[in-house]
Amino acid sequence: MEKNCTEFSGINIYNAVNDFGTPLILYSEKRIRENVKRIINAFMPYNISIHFAMKANYNPYILNLLKSLGCGIDAANQNEAMLALKLGFNNNDVVSTPNNLDREGLAFLINNGIKINYDHLGQYKLVQDLNPEFVSFRINPGIGMGEFKEITTAGENVKFGISYDEALKSYKYARDHGAKRFGIHMMTGSNVLSAKFFKESSRIFFNIAANISKKLDISFDYLDLGGGFGVPYRDNDPDFDIKAAAGYILENFENFNCIFNNSDLIIEPGRYIIADSAILISRITSIKNYGHTIIGTDASMNTLIRIPLYGAYHKIYIAGKCSDGKLISADIVGQACENTDYIARNIKIPSVNDGDIVIISNAGAYIMSMASNYNLLARPAEAIILDGNLRLIKKRESVDDMLKTFYP
Amino acid sequence: MEKNCTEFSGINIYNAVNDFGTPLILYSEKRIRENVKRIINAFMPYNISIHFAMKANYNPYILNLLKSLGCGIDAANQNEAMLALKLGFNNNDVVSTPNNLDREGLAFLINNGIKINYDHLGQYKLVQDLNPEFVSFRINPGIGMGEFKEITTAGENVKFGISYDEALKSYKYARDHGAKRFGIHMMTGSNVLSAKFFKESSRIFFNIAANISKKLDISFDYLDLGGGFGVPYRDNDPDFDIKAAAGYILENFENFNCIFNNSDLIIEPGRYIIADSAILISRITSIKNYGHTIIGTDASMNTLIRIPLYGAYHKIYIAGKCSDGKLISADIVGQACENTDYIARNIKIPSVNDGDIVIISNAGAYIMSMASNYNLLARPAEAIILDGNLRLIKKRESVDDMLKTFYP
Repeated sequence: MEKNCTEFSGINIYNAVNDFGTPLILYSEKRIRENVKRIINAFMPYNISIHFAMKANYNPYILNLLKSLGCGIDAANQNEAMLALKLGFNNNDVVSTPNNLDREGLAFLINNGIKINYDHLGQYKLVQDLNPEFVSFRINPGIGMGEFKEITTAGENVKFGISYDEALKSYKYARDHGAKRFGIHMMTGSNVLSAKFFKESSRIFFNIAANISKKLDISFDYLDLGGGFGVPYRDNDPDFDIKAAAGYILENFENFNCIFNNSDLIIEPGRYIIADSAILISRITSIKNYGHTIIGTDASMNTLIRIPLYGAYHKIYIAGKCSDGKLISADIVGQACENTDYIARNIKIPSVNDGDIVIISNAGAYIMSMASNYNLLARPAEAIILDGNLRLIKKRESVDDMLKTFYP
Repeated sequence: MEKNCTEFSGINIYNAVNDFGTPLILYSEKRIRENVKRIINAFMPYNISIHFAMKANYNPYILNLLKSLGCGIDAANQNEAMLALKLGFNNNDVVSTPNNLDREGLAFLINNGIKINYDHLGQYKLVQDLNPEFVSFRINPGIGMGEFKEITTAGENVKFGISYDEALKSYKYARDHGAKRFGIHMMTGSNVLSAKFFKESSRIFFNIAANISKKLDISFDYLDLGGGFGVPYRDNDPDFDIKAAAGYILENFENFNCIFNNSDLIIEPGRYIIADSAILISRITSIKNYGHTIIGTDASMNTLIRIPLYGAYHKIYIAGKCSDGKLISADIVGQACENTDYIARNIKIPSVNDGDIVIISNAGAYIMSMASNYNLLARPAEAIILDGNLRLIKKRESVDDMLKTFYP
């Protein structure tokens, strides 16, 4: 946010509102480029493969931009892989880590030459008769970390991956049944701000991979460390030290250089690349004050489900009032007919008026991709700022758009 | 569920799966008709106005069916009202109770002759210059009830409605500024199974309405009691005693007969009409057992957000295995790349195999209307059973369908 919270990436926010209305997600192409570059630089001189986690954001314009920056794709399933291929990503640059996919979905991935990180042996067995030459399994390294337990994807009580012992058996089974090339994957959790966590998790992961490699005499085409790099959502959150994390990962990697000298290193950032590249712009539609101030906006739980779902927090600004000295205490709520529909509770914000513009930060990741049409509310429009110009990259749905797949 | 959990409303579930695949929401038209009829009978001889809460389910086929049964619509906003008008509902049969709607949305409702239950005076003031002849306010009667705090919409710490004192001032203000006709509304919460609660809440509500009526010398065209009638989701949940609830409401109403003798009574059931009319049919795609059994299905959090969001519970059946004596303990999870994606934890179910059909009950309300495309997963297809025939009423989205509003 710049110039008293009225500018974002060199564009006046009121101009964006005039052009495209609210709610609107506004991306900065510049920031996306910077985020990718920072990752590349952190891992220099090692040429790491960056596979963008499409689950964070599947806007085709964004995906095309990331392709032009050399990123590949982490696809959650055959649908995400299909979109990547349609956009011209090379199948070599798409790796899929599906969860509980059926035979049909897995077969699509194999038939399109997309490498699969199987969650467990049972998933591989579903398509074993297709003789996939390449097999990779998802390791649960026994530790996990995430901002919320709901997005922690390794350690205890998670549905994902397999232990070292199970992995050893699974790779042996695959090797004995015709698999010729191998990868290995882990994904420990999302939105981790501690660089040190990656020191520990990558050490365990490389150790597991080395043991499997030695015991079964197989080599890995890739070591896929998954994602998890966090972004600060709260005022006191530290920046994620990507240079330190990369340093830890590469130091651990080099310890196994003799074993992995032909292996690619893959990381799967999603949030880190896209979250802070965008803001969600909404408008105050109602102020209710009977002792306690409740501010209504046109951004609702259909757009911001991660707030009621995880208790996620997004920093909120009021356009034109960054430096307003007087703060009030208020709840911010949306338009949905349900009491889950809180954007923030008891936060301090500058005093506001009907029609004021509310800016919700870090809106690039897991906002639009998780949005719904609950209450027949449209998912937000999306625009991107490039060289001082605005470009619409997703329109707001009409009621007709929302009903296209229904047959009355 | 009938015939060892392979039949629903006279249709073999496997036939539905063959025709339309999974995940599929399958409705029984017969059950919808029965539910509406039960409400009408419970309130007999009083001719209550039933306004279906579209937020529970906005499938146009279902809405048309409810229109044919004499129901009106409870619209959350101008979009839901627009759909009702498109489907041919009379504007007199649509009442809207928006929350934090903007002037444009409110004006659409007024210009189309749709009555508005304003959340508070500020919302009315937004459109006061349009001189709406009809004004209604949403009362928070000071008590609320719901299965979860997130769906409890009155009492303390809710964003909805106003107290008696505030209502008195608001009606006076509206009357003094030209409003000629009035309604009054409350909505205390969703999925209430206690009939007695409505004895208490309707008593408070009618009392408030009577006081306002007397003090301001205004009469109410309608008294809108909102919804909240629950359905049993859990084994030990009692049926909602609609006859008892109706009896309590009408008894309280008759006590005020001299005041309200020209007022309509409106109720706004959503869940009660539609929840138990449908099942969600999904397929087991993966069984993982390393000590603890995790069953993966193609129904995921994108379809079933109310499970991770509220900790909601839906009874689960395995097709063909209703009477299977041997039970196992298992988690049931979906395909999304996130650990929130649990459908059930540690439940007892018959032993299963890959490909088995999993049936999730009470799938008619707040499933499809809250669904998203997270992980580029399609929202489920929907079909309805009428006189032993199957009819597709919503197709499953393709990847292209999901990307229609994006501009690459």
